[in-house]
Amino acid sequence: MIDVALGVDVGGTKSLAVVLDATGHVLDESRVASHAESPDALVEALSRQIRQLCEVHDLDVSTIPLGVGVAGMVAIDGRVAFSPHLPGASGAQVASGLCASLARQSTVVDNDANLAALAEGRWGAARGESHYVMVTLGTGIGGGIFTESTLRRGAHGFAGEIGHMSVVARGERCACGARGCWERYVSGDALTRRAREEVAAGRAALLAARYGPALTSEDVAAAADAHVPEARALLDEMGWWLAAGLANLAAILDVSCFVVGGGLSALANHLLPATRGHLDGLLEGRAARGEVEVRDAVLGARAGAMGAALAARERS
Amino acid sequence: MIDVALGVDVGGTKSLAVVLDATGHVLDESRVASHAESPDALVEALSRQIRQLCEVHDLDVSTIPLGVGVAGMVAIDGRVAFSPHLPGASGAQVASGLCASLARQSTVVDNDANLAALAEGRWGAARGESHYVMVTLGTGIGGGIFTESTLRRGAHGFAGEIGHMSVVARGERCACGARGCWERYVSGDALTRRAREEVAAGRAALLAARYGPALTSEDVAAAADAHVPEARALLDEMGWWLAAGLANLAAILDVSCFVVGGGLSALANHLLPATRGHLDGLLEGRAARGEVEVRDAVLGARAGAMGAALAARERS
Repeated sequence: MIDVALGVDVGGTKSLAVVLDATGHVLDESRVASHAESPDALVEALSRQIRQLCEVHDLDVSTIPLGVGVAGMVAIDGRVAFSPHLPGASGAQVASGLCASLARQSTVVDNDANLAALAEGRWGAARGESHYVMVTLGTGIGGGIFTESTLRRGAHGFAGEIGHMSVVARGERCACGARGCWERYVSGDALTRRAREEVAAGRAALLAARYGPALTSEDVAAAADAHVPEARALLDEMGWWLAAGLANLAAILDVSCFVVGGGLSALANHLLPATRGHLDGLLEGRAARGEVEVRDAVLGARAGAMGAALAARERS
Repeated sequence: MIDVALGVDVGGTKSLAVVLDATGHVLDESRVASHAESPDALVEALSRQIRQLCEVHDLDVSTIPLGVGVAGMVAIDGRVAFSPHLPGASGAQVASGLCASLARQSTVVDNDANLAALAEGRWGAARGESHYVMVTLGTGIGGGIFTESTLRRGAHGFAGEIGHMSVVARGERCACGARGCWERYVSGDALTRRAREEVAAGRAALLAARYGPALTSEDVAAAADAHVPEARALLDEMGWWLAAGLANLAAILDVSCFVVGGGLSALANHLLPATRGHLDGLLEGRAARGEVEVRDAVLGARAGAMGAALAARERS
C-alpha cells in the first residue's frame, strides 16, 4: 500500500480532508460543509467524510495515520474544550470519538493553526526556522508557536490562542467573551466594520460612491487593487494592528520569523507590506533585536489539513 | 572546598551578589550601587564586587561557578543587547568581559527575571510546575517563561520581555520607545501617577488630606493598609491591569501558574488578591481552561541572584 496519511481541517464553514504522501504532496482532497451543531454531529460528520475518502482510495480507515485540526482550544487528549467560532463543537471528544466510530487505536487532534504551523515548518515558509509563529487570519486569528523547532502546546494543549491577546484594554467585545482581543482588529469583519464607519462618517467618498454604505472587506480589497487611496489607508491601518500584535509576540517569545496565512490571504498583497513597514517602530529594542521577518504562508488553505496528516504520521 | 556558586543580580539601582550552596542556601551576600554609566563601568564594577566576595570567602574567582542576571534583553552570548532601565549598560559584553577580567573560562549571563524564574522553580513558588511564567514587578515588568520545565530564551535570548507587550494600542509612551507597554500600567511609578491624577481631579479627598498632591505609591500602600477606600480602589485598578496582561500570557502560552515577585512585593498584599479576582473574567474560555494560579514569589529580592548562581552551577 502506498505510504499516505489523512488530514482533516475543520473550519467555521467547511471541513477539508486531504490524502497526503510522505513528501507533502496532496494526492486527493474532499470538502464538505462543517457540521458543528453539537459535539456528536461534529464527530459523525468527520467519520463520514473520512470513511468516504478512504473508500475511494482503498485505504484502511482503521489503521491509516489520521490527524484532525479544529479551530479553538483543543486539549492534549483530543477534546475540543472551547471554540469561539464553532460554538457547537465545544466539548466534542474528537479523538476518542473518531477512534470509537472508525475502530482506530489513535487519532491525532490539535488546534488547526498549530497544525498549519507544523506544515509550513516542514514544507512551507518556515522551513529551517527554529523559532517562529504561524499566524492564521480568518474569522479570527489562530496561532501556532514553535520554539527550538518544537510545537509548544502548553500545559493543557491551549497554547497559541494569540487572537485572544487583548491589545485594547476594555476594547471591543469578542466572541470569546473578553474585550479588545487582537482578532477584533484584524479580520475581514474588522475591515468591513472600519470601511462602513469611514463611509458613514463621510470620510471615504470614493468608496461610498463605488460601493455604497454596505460595502464589504472584499470591496475594500478590490478598491485597493484599483489604487483607491481610502482603501489603501484602511489596509494600512489593519497592517498596523497586525504589526502591533506581532510586536507583542516578538517581545514575549523572541521568534525570528512570523508566517502569515489563512483565509484572509486575498488581502495579503496589501496587508503584509503595511505590516512590515509598521513592525520595526513597534518592536522593543529594534536595533539590538535584529530583523523579525514577516513571511507569506506558501501552503495556502490546505496547510492545516496537511499539518494534520503530518502530525498523524509523526505521532503514530 | 565547600560546594558553592556565586550569583549576581544587577538591578536599576543596586547590584546584589550571593554565595549559594547546592541546596539553595544563601551563605553570604553583598550589595553595592549599580554602575551602569557605560558598558565598561558595568563590567569593572561587577569584577570588583565578585573579586571582593571571593576574597572574603577564600573562593577561587577564576573557577567558581558564576552567574550574572541583568535587567533587559540579554543575548545568548552574554551581551546586554538593550536595557530600557539601565540604558548605559546596553552593549556590555558581560560574559566575555568578566571572563577576561577574572581569568575565567565561562560565565553565565542571562536576563534577571529568567534567572528568578529558575530559582522560584527549583526552590520557590513554582516548584514542581512545568508551565509557568515568573513576573517580576519593579521599575518595569520582567518575565521568565518555562514550558515543559525548560526556560525558553527564544531565538536570541530575548524571550520573556513581557513588560513590553502593549496592552493599550497607541497608549502611554514607554522607556523602550514603544507605546502602551504593560509595565506602564503596573509599577510603582504607575501607581504614583494614577494617585496624583485622582488627587488633582478632586476624586481622592482622603488621600489628598493625608498626603497632599505629591503623594507616592508608598503612601498609597500605607493608606490601603489603613483601609482608605480610595487607596484600595487604586490598587484594585492596578490589579486589573496586572490580570489583563496575565490573561494575554495565558492565552498565548497556556501556563498553569504565574509567580509574581520583584521589588513591588510590598504591594502584593493588596495587588494579588485583586488580580486573582479579575483574572477569571479576562481569560479566554475560562470554564474550559481550568484554574490559572497567581502565586506570590517566595524567594524575595534574592531570587535573581540565587537563580544566577543556580544557572552557573548547572551550565558549567
